[in-house]
Amino acid sequence: MNSNVPFRGIIAYPITPFTADNAVDLPTYRRLVERLVGSGSHGIAPLGSTGVLPYLTDEERDAVTKATLQQVAGRVPVLVGVSHLTTTGVVRHARFAEQAGAAGIMVIPMSYWKLTDNEIFQHFDRVASAVSVPIMAYNNPATGGLDMSPTLLKRLLEIPNVTMIKESTGDVQRMQALRQLLGEDVAFYNGSNPLALAAFAAGATGWCTAAPNLAPELTMGLYEAVQQQDLTAARQLFYQQFELLQFIVAKGLPRAIKAGLELLGEQAGELRAPLQPLTEAEQQELGRILDRVQVPATAG
Amino acid sequence: MNSNVPFRGIIAYPITPFTADNAVDLPTYRRLVERLVGSGSHGIAPLGSTGVLPYLTDEERDAVTKATLQQVAGRVPVLVGVSHLTTTGVVRHARFAEQAGAAGIMVIPMSYWKLTDNEIFQHFDRVASAVSVPIMAYNNPATGGLDMSPTLLKRLLEIPNVTMIKESTGDVQRMQALRQLLGEDVAFYNGSNPLALAAFAAGATGWCTAAPNLAPELTMGLYEAVQQQDLTAARQLFYQQFELLQFIVAKGLPRAIKAGLELLGEQAGELRAPLQPLTEAEQQELGRILDRVQVPATAG
Amino acid sequence: MNSNVPFRGIIAYPITPFTADNAVDLPTYRRLVERLVGSGSHGIAPLGSTGVLPYLTDEERDAVTKATLQQVAGRVPVLVGVSHLTTTGVVRHARFAEQAGAAGIMVIPMSYWKLTDNEIFQHFDRVASAVSVPIMAYNNPATGGLDMSPTLLKRLLEIPNVTMIKESTGDVQRMQALRQLLGEDVAFYNGSNPLALAAFAAGATGWCTAAPNLAPELTMGLYEAVQQQDLTAARQLFYQQFELLQFIVAKGLPRAIKAGLELLGEQAGELRAPLQPLTEAEQQELGRILDRVQVPATAG
Amino acid sequence: MNSNVPFRGIIAYPITPFTADNAVDLPTYRRLVERLVGSGSHGIAPLGSTGVLPYLTDEERDAVTKATLQQVAGRVPVLVGVSHLTTTGVVRHARFAEQAGAAGIMVIPMSYWKLTDNEIFQHFDRVASAVSVPIMAYNNPATGGLDMSPTLLKRLLEIPNVTMIKESTGDVQRMQALRQLLGEDVAFYNGSNPLALAAFAAGATGWCTAAPNLAPELTMGLYEAVQQQDLTAARQLFYQQFELLQFIVAKGLPRAIKAGLELLGEQAGELRAPLQPLTEAEQQELGRILDRVQVPATAG
Repeated sequence: MNSNVPFRGIIAYPITPFTADNAVDLPTYRRLVERLVGSGSHGIAPLGSTGVLPYLTDEERDAVTKATLQQVAGRVPVLVGVSHLTTTGVVRHARFAEQAGAAGIMVIPMSYWKLTDNEIFQHFDRVASAVSVPIMAYNNPATGGLDMSPTLLKRLLEIPNVTMIKESTGDVQRMQALRQLLGEDVAFYNGSNPLALAAFAAGATGWCTAAPNLAPELTMGLYEAVQQQDLTAARQLFYQQFELLQFIVAKGLPRAIKAGLELLGEQAGELRAPLQPLTEAEQQELGRILDRVQVPATAG
Repeated sequence: MNSNVPFRGIIAYPITPFTADNAVDLPTYRRLVERLVGSGSHGIAPLGSTGVLPYLTDEERDAVTKATLQQVAGRVPVLVGVSHLTTTGVVRHARFAEQAGAAGIMVIPMSYWKLTDNEIFQHFDRVASAVSVPIMAYNNPATGGLDMSPTLLKRLLEIPNVTMIKESTGDVQRMQALRQLLGEDVAFYNGSNPLALAAFAAGATGWCTAAPNLAPELTMGLYEAVQQQDLTAARQLFYQQFELLQFIVAKGLPRAIKAGLELLGEQAGELRAPLQPLTEAEQQELGRILDRVQVPATAG
Repeated sequence: MNSNVPFRGIIAYPITPFTADNAVDLPTYRRLVERLVGSGSHGIAPLGSTGVLPYLTDEERDAVTKATLQQVAGRVPVLVGVSHLTTTGVVRHARFAEQAGAAGIMVIPMSYWKLTDNEIFQHFDRVASAVSVPIMAYNNPATGGLDMSPTLLKRLLEIPNVTMIKESTGDVQRMQALRQLLGEDVAFYNGSNPLALAAFAAGATGWCTAAPNLAPELTMGLYEAVQQQDLTAARQLFYQQFELLQFIVAKGLPRAIKAGLELLGEQAGELRAPLQPLTEAEQQELGRILDRVQVPATAG
Repeated sequence: MNSNVPFRGIIAYPITPFTADNAVDLPTYRRLVERLVGSGSHGIAPLGSTGVLPYLTDEERDAVTKATLQQVAGRVPVLVGVSHLTTTGVVRHARFAEQAGAAGIMVIPMSYWKLTDNEIFQHFDRVASAVSVPIMAYNNPATGGLDMSPTLLKRLLEIPNVTMIKESTGDVQRMQALRQLLGEDVAFYNGSNPLALAAFAAGATGWCTAAPNLAPELTMGLYEAVQQQDLTAARQLFYQQFELLQFIVAKGLPRAIKAGLELLGEQAGELRAPLQPLTEAEQQELGRILDRVQVPATAG
């Protein structure tokens, strides 16, 4: 691992908890970050989709960035989400993250109007010129509203400090096409939880996931099994957590992780409207899934 | 027309022009609004997708709202876009628009995380409780990221001041299903330019469109022909502008309207990054389309 | 109307009924064809999707073709479906239909392997060379498995006796694009029942539909209202049958028409497996829809 | 391996070659089958999509079935495709295949009208009742026109001799869902070439593929590497053939395999219209891909 590609393995995404009066609850947030570091995550990624980045004000984003870096305190690298609808906004947050000590920043080209490939390239290029920290280009049509082709991603990697790609289309063929197009040295990361096993098989450098909030032994265990080429163990660990991964994706990560943390006895704060908690029935279903996940894990 | 449904016919969408140093260019904006009123639009809708609502700060949005109402000065009703990712944000902008004198407000449930039907209902309900101005619920999966079913839209109409629906899925069957489900008194508006004729045939109350910036005689003419049950004339006027409607949708309304205005000799300001102007070739194509649109119009 | 474009208005599709021992029930079929002619249909189209063309043997198809032409006996033009997976097969059935007296033949490029544009062109060209009867090119990705672009359809129209296009994608914009690309003289037909009103507004020459089996006054009435430019009446007649059109499409035309005919007191024979009758609950739903459709029609 | 699940590993699909006058070329066919057996395939599957099953007459299908079983002569198990649009047709071909000595039969519920889950179940149930040979249920929406859900596939497996599932949606999550729903003993096969590595990682019993016609060392090598848990080797072998797998899928298996065989110096007969050979440019591209595939294979 070099300084241009400072992430590998399990990159864990904390949620952003809110107080009853709709402010960011930083003390609770720091406890949740500490849990992720303590359970062995190889990196921490604040202000992702899980962290409801687009629902936060600029000042709230700054506070979360600072709190993360203080709490992690250099134990693992921190990847800060700096996306914004305007290019000017991304530059502002990218600079703040760099100054705060982020090892890398993540940029998803958020859309409202569909951007052309050229607009996306200019967007990344202007951000990259403003900082020297490595950049992870993040493709997630379902949340960002734009689908960056492998060809465009290849072009983005020509920008010197764009060194990493996070793929969340949910299609393993897209990762394979990236690997094919870019060679085996490309650092690509899987952001689609149900594809964790397939992505590692395809050569992913890491897995960007909120699952370590709820089942860290399984997420870390899967990565270790793949590292040791123990495909049988990897497969067994993957299927053990597959139902949980499907659930948290289907229900939305912020809602599902908050509910899961509370079922595990952790304080997880409130959601920010329009997001609402899982229904009672959904919480019970998650409880049953967590029970099934935990039992074999402690037995294993 | 009653005060609960203050819009009919052609509701025109201005772009938001920017200065060279990335500020909102209010003088240019007011001239563009004046053009739309002067050419016979039946309503003005600032801060829509065409007006790059999501790329503006709260303060910029306030300034555009005030400038619109001052410029229009009661000649036609004004429909202000007040969407925001958070519920709190929508309430803030809804109140501002009401106090500024808007005849109605438009809310698209912007997504990042897919919202559940219940979250969307709560979102609208909280906004509706905070104001008394009529609300247009806007469905546009392509820009908003969420698709509200006819069933959900029916439920939203049970909120007293949610009285209008704007449908922009691009599927006329959706409008027909709404009309079927809600009865012939429902006020539904077409927001998909290439469906203008089909939507009026299906019973749409109005057409929300940026096209009057470039071809007002044709947009207004289509509405009048439909009103007079002259289907032959309506069809002829529609196909005369169909190529233009396809172009502005395909290229993105802010980019295409800006380019078109300049081709027509109007100042239209700058775009805000990441949006970039049309390429030279695209501008030439638009020029040819505008030539074809204009010639028969002056001849007819 | 000229001999190259022998169809306009309502082109009615009979089902193909089967006996209890899985043979084509020709006497019942002829009665159903007679009903369609008697209720004012402007054309009859055997061996379409409604007639379960792909489930019939070559000999059964020949028998249905002959029976149709004998029963119709020149009162209205007959459009025979001659599609087959192989080019040789289409040529065989096209020749048979021409010799039997069809006014036109319909060809949908059935797929299994997706065909290239060039393969589709060759397919039509070889069929067109083998007969002199006018050909309707039929685009229906949902049943045929292939989507022919407006550009490809334009190319097909360059083949001398390919003179008509039937569009069943369910997207009125596709018809508009055809009309835009091909000029107002193109003969295009709507094959998507829920788009009947929008398609006529867009300039369709005819509507290919199985609905006259169940509500002939409404289908013929809609066409007449459009001819007389009475948009209000057309809209009222359309919404009166819209629920029925949605139902028969959603449940599959052969199943739904058979069930509807029986609810109306007609014998409609058996379906051929794997097709099965509608469930009891579906039949009851259709009964309620037919009741609602009939009452206003007799009152109006 | 037991007699209910007689297939594992690489199940190879021959094309069906035709003579210049459009007849099945059985001598060429038998040579192509011999090549597949000789290069180590673990099973042979005539009359699949690759073998253009739907373009053949009943008599041609019988002849291909017999020729395959005679040529293979018990060296590996044979899986005969017996699909037909009608239930009666499937029963007929299923009985023929069983009597001819097939170890299993494959049924894809071919559509024209979308079939309901109940119709699909009845279809399989009637076929299964007519034979005692094990049945592989094949899901491939792209060619068959129907998408069978994991839940429906689970229901099909309750029919005693439906014992295997072939999944070709191209989505590895579907295979994972099957494995999750059905337990680790389910025999599922991957029919999507670009998913070969991901499917084996997910636990697939076998890979149904036409690729052994062109690169048997790589297909067989991938399976062996997975068996030996050598993930690094498996990944290397997969990427070595990935470009080829993408190409043959994108261009259509019958066209691409025929062209590839000829580039490798084999006679491969003609295609049946409407299928046409690859263009010259496509053949050259395939030639370059085959060159790249071969070189490392001989070096490795």
